[in-house]
Amino acid sequence: MSVSTAAADQSLCTPLPVLGRDVTVPLVTGGEVTYAALDYAASAPALQRVWDDVAAYAPYYGSVHRGAGYLSQLSTDLFENSRVTVAEFLGCREDDQVIFTRSTTDSLNLLAAVLPADCQVFVFETEHHASLLPWRDARVTYLNAPRTHEEAVQTLERALADRDPHGPALVCVTGASNVTGELWPVRELAAAAHAHGARIVLDAAQLAPHHPVDIQDLDVDWVAFSGHKLYAPFGSGVLAGRADWLQGAEPYLAGGGASRKVARRADGGVDVEWHDSAARHEAGSPNVIGVYSIASACKALTEAGFDSLVAREEYLIGKVREGLAAVPEVKVLSLFGDDAPRVGVLSFVVEGWNSSHFAAALSAEYGIGVRDGLFCAHPLVRTLLGSDPQTQGECGAPEAAPGEKSLNAIRVSFGAGTPDEHVERFVRAVTELVRQGARWNYRTEGGRCVPAV
Amino acid sequence: MSVSTAAADQSLCTPLPVLGRDVTVPLVTGGEVTYAALDYAASAPALQRVWDDVAAYAPYYGSVHRGAGYLSQLSTDLFENSRVTVAEFLGCREDDQVIFTRSTTDSLNLLAAVLPADCQVFVFETEHHASLLPWRDARVTYLNAPRTHEEAVQTLERALADRDPHGPALVCVTGASNVTGELWPVRELAAAAHAHGARIVLDAAQLAPHHPVDIQDLDVDWVAFSGHKLYAPFGSGVLAGRADWLQGAEPYLAGGGASRKVARRADGGVDVEWHDSAARHEAGSPNVIGVYSIASACKALTEAGFDSLVAREEYLIGKVREGLAAVPEVKVLSLFGDDAPRVGVLSFVVEGWNSSHFAAALSAEYGIGVRDGLFCAHPLVRTLLGSDPQTQGECGAPEAAPGEKSLNAIRVSFGAGTPDEHVERFVRAVTELVRQGARWNYRTEGGRCVPAV
Repeated sequence: MSVSTAAADQSLCTPLPVLGRDVTVPLVTGGEVTYAALDYAASAPALQRVWDDVAAYAPYYGSVHRGAGYLSQLSTDLFENSRVTVAEFLGCREDDQVIFTRSTTDSLNLLAAVLPADCQVFVFETEHHASLLPWRDARVTYLNAPRTHEEAVQTLERALADRDPHGPALVCVTGASNVTGELWPVRELAAAAHAHGARIVLDAAQLAPHHPVDIQDLDVDWVAFSGHKLYAPFGSGVLAGRADWLQGAEPYLAGGGASRKVARRADGGVDVEWHDSAARHEAGSPNVIGVYSIASACKALTEAGFDSLVAREEYLIGKVREGLAAVPEVKVLSLFGDDAPRVGVLSFVVEGWNSSHFAAALSAEYGIGVRDGLFCAHPLVRTLLGSDPQTQGECGAPEAAPGEKSLNAIRVSFGAGTPDEHVERFVRAVTELVRQGARWNYRTEGGRCVPAV
Repeated sequence: MSVSTAAADQSLCTPLPVLGRDVTVPLVTGGEVTYAALDYAASAPALQRVWDDVAAYAPYYGSVHRGAGYLSQLSTDLFENSRVTVAEFLGCREDDQVIFTRSTTDSLNLLAAVLPADCQVFVFETEHHASLLPWRDARVTYLNAPRTHEEAVQTLERALADRDPHGPALVCVTGASNVTGELWPVRELAAAAHAHGARIVLDAAQLAPHHPVDIQDLDVDWVAFSGHKLYAPFGSGVLAGRADWLQGAEPYLAGGGASRKVARRADGGVDVEWHDSAARHEAGSPNVIGVYSIASACKALTEAGFDSLVAREEYLIGKVREGLAAVPEVKVLSLFGDDAPRVGVLSFVVEGWNSSHFAAALSAEYGIGVRDGLFCAHPLVRTLLGSDPQTQGECGAPEAAPGEKSLNAIRVSFGAGTPDEHVERFVRAVTELVRQGARWNYRTEGGRCVPAV
């Protein structure tokens, strides 16, 4: 594995300015250091541009769709223009709807709520829980983890062809794994779904911040993503795509905004006419700041250009992979093999180390923020670690008995705001911890692994 | 009606600083004027203190419950401490849960999703749609609009006593009407509910920004409110109260964060263990900025002191009522009579005026932002206007044929950030418009009433 000349040129690119880039944190060994935020896959820092846009708008905040005043009209325009910006960012078809939700989890729960009767859902066991679990009223087929892109497509095709009855079906697939960062063959899976009369929703939570996502080019029916992973952490997300299932179903939330007309009936009951537009599924006052922040991020990423963002990220991925490859005790987790295309998300375990202790040491001794655990993708992490489901740890509650082999993993993730120094420090830290051991002892306290005092 | 000496003293109090207090807007008649935000009942401006807290935190933003890094731990603490602050703000019982949602609408939809089997719901037709409509899987009894507090309690008691079967029941009631601003006898309704074996949820969306809400003092089972009406417009809301129904039901959203353990079964299916804590209903990455902003607002209001906030608001209410009373063409809408206690929310119609034109003129000629329409409480507004349900206008889409009697109303609302000058300008504007007529013509364009050019 080596850094190519083309990638090396990207070291000259500068990261996009993000909030918190100058924040320093204390080290357990004394002193302070600039915080290296390497947990982008959970929540990315806000782009400075996004923050500046939000700060400039905040004094003009007003009620959306609800007021006659100047700021209400301005806020309503800002909100609806944000919808247009997101539609452009995703390359939406003319009759697609863009619904603002609170997150990818919310978007997929919304889609689960509008499935037609008797819809069957097909989902790989390798998905994030947000894609794996929302289909509670449907018959769900969980597909085994494939080991190649071809196997993924064949597995899906077989399952769709074999379905009985051959009724409405939905495939839910991630664009990039939140555990391995590996890309999935979305275009091929979409073609397979459509060839078998199924629809497909793309979980782009991990893909959209790193790569362009074009709904028409990929030919998927819906796309879901989150603001907080797209440098816009203000509580909003997106579900965009085909309008028919959305319009044909009961509103996701019942309340104002979704209801066009409400009237008592003579028998004492209440009749409701719901909106058909996106408002149907957006009851309650819209989170205009959250929505505007997503639009701002879409514009900022588009203007920076995904070509150069991807090239720079490839360069950083190369540095991390090269650094980890030089430490034989480190095992990087992968479904599709070392050279599979990926975004800046890598998970690994370290031989002889409890992953929670390792992550705690990265934070306490190097000021590096990563994540340890099962990453809300338990079946996938179990498959990758080859561990027994019964001894599997809990999400967010690392086992921490010192010296014990961890059943969790460590995830490092980065993106458009990451400077070279962060990944360089990360590689150095991993190397030093493995070679020299931690300089401190760690213990578990209230579900966290912390330096023992 | 006169301003009492005690209230007049409150003119010496200063409003709490809010964002946008210096924003100017253009007038159709030329020049600019400071914007008078008098649509607090839809969305209140952010308190300056809330904005400052959010801005100070934003660079330290990190993944909540999900990371080993310093900023993740800090953000997790901030998030969980915010839960404690909100519990204190509401005077929660020790075993109450505080769930963070996106809004009151979302909170009540969540509660609707956790109702026990065969639960009957009792709700007055006078409620906001967010309280009226979420109970889609329950048998709902809509109670007729009462004209006194006593009638409200008696109506509820009779309905609860008559219910058949006498099983689990929930009463949903507003603390302060979003149309009339009038207070409801929450304590008495809670006592009636409990006496008849029912539970009660308080929709405090309009009450919490104006009056202290103490869950134990009122003896309600749950309270719901929104950040965006509580000077914290960052996309979060609250449902707080009894844990049993919440813990006993399926998670509101399915996904990461709510799931403790997920494992494939031998038969290919998936087993899920859900959390019992608040996390059960908070799937997906929490909106930590939204949640923290609510906690910040709770602290700011508590520190300012509700005694003085209420006294100042009473003073402003007195000014508005006195001003409107001097214009015989203005009819203020009321369920409980002119002297009923209320918060700073008043709706009215003007004889001979289309309400949408009137609201448009207030904005275009005076820089005043109010709301016109049906306020997402169609049955209540119809009752108050005595209008025919079949000719009722649509929420947010004012009818605007000039000269035609409006079926909508105009709502003025204000709160902790409102300076005297805004309500003084409002009273002057109403008086001038009625006496002298509008100086401009207005027309409807894209659902809005705007100055005709």
